[in-house]
Amino acid sequence: MTDEKEMLGTCPVDRGLTRVGDRWSMLILRDVEYGLTRYEQLRTSLGIAPNILARRLAALTAAGLLEKRRYSQRPPRDEYLLTDAGRDFLPILMAIGAWGRKYNGAGALSLHRDATTGEIVRPVVVDAVTGAPIGSRPLRLDMPD
Amino acid sequence: MTDEKEMLGTCPVDRGLTRVGDRWSMLILRDVEYGLTRYEQLRTSLGIAPNILARRLAALTAAGLLEKRRYSQRPPRDEYLLTDAGRDFLPILMAIGAWGRKYNGAGALSLHRDATTGEIVRPVVVDAVTGAPIGSRPLRLDMPD
Repeated sequence: MTDEKEMLGTCPVDRGLTRVGDRWSMLILRDVEYGLTRYEQLRTSLGIAPNILARRLAALTAAGLLEKRRYSQRPPRDEYLLTDAGRDFLPILMAIGAWGRKYNGAGALSLHRDATTGEIVRPVVVDAVTGAPIGSRPLRLDMPD
Repeated sequence: MTDEKEMLGTCPVDRGLTRVGDRWSMLILRDVEYGLTRYEQLRTSLGIAPNILARRLAALTAAGLLEKRRYSQRPPRDEYLLTDAGRDFLPILMAIGAWGRKYNGAGALSLHRDATTGEIVRPVVVDAVTGAPIGSRPLRLDMPD
């Protein structure tokens, strides 16, 4: 969780989750990507308690996934934009969405299409080296010395 | 979060996160994959409070990502195994690991190699239809009617 003290373990999964490992943080990233960059927009979209939203925004900003930009001086108002690190997390949300569609997908769901071809996007995690879906070939875990 | 009441919204990302959207749940899945299938093994590996571990295991089991198997009758002891849904979540953890390595990767980290080729695995989320990494082509969001 982003509001826990970070400990530098050797597992990259934990390293990632330390920065953004809770549902609200991920849903905030999703909404910011959809253009809901302001506090009130996020609060309304997510139905989240104000103090939790403020804490998550501060944590995501401190963790380098969002950056604040002041869009009004009086009254002082900030909006939140994705950094490169925040944008790089979006494909993971797409993969979570594909999983959610498969295992908790009853009823009507939104979906993404490739804007050029119109085809429904099917996110899958592959090894960029072999192109094979992760899980389709045996892996070996190497621990650091 | 798995211990919140599930609401069936239209976003598949939220549908996924409702089942497994917190750091502990994801770390439990990671450890079970590594063969730490028993309560005591998980407690020791994660350094997690017993009541939180018990709650997460119950939630992951109720959500269909883990299944209990009794390995001792006296005393009664269960271990936890990944279901197909749980196993299908592992590639997402690999993608989170790749992100964590990139953005929170100081110091020594564990890594996965392809067991056959010995090459370091580079997880990336692609569209299975085009093969293009998610984020490299414009997408369109379709809301359900």
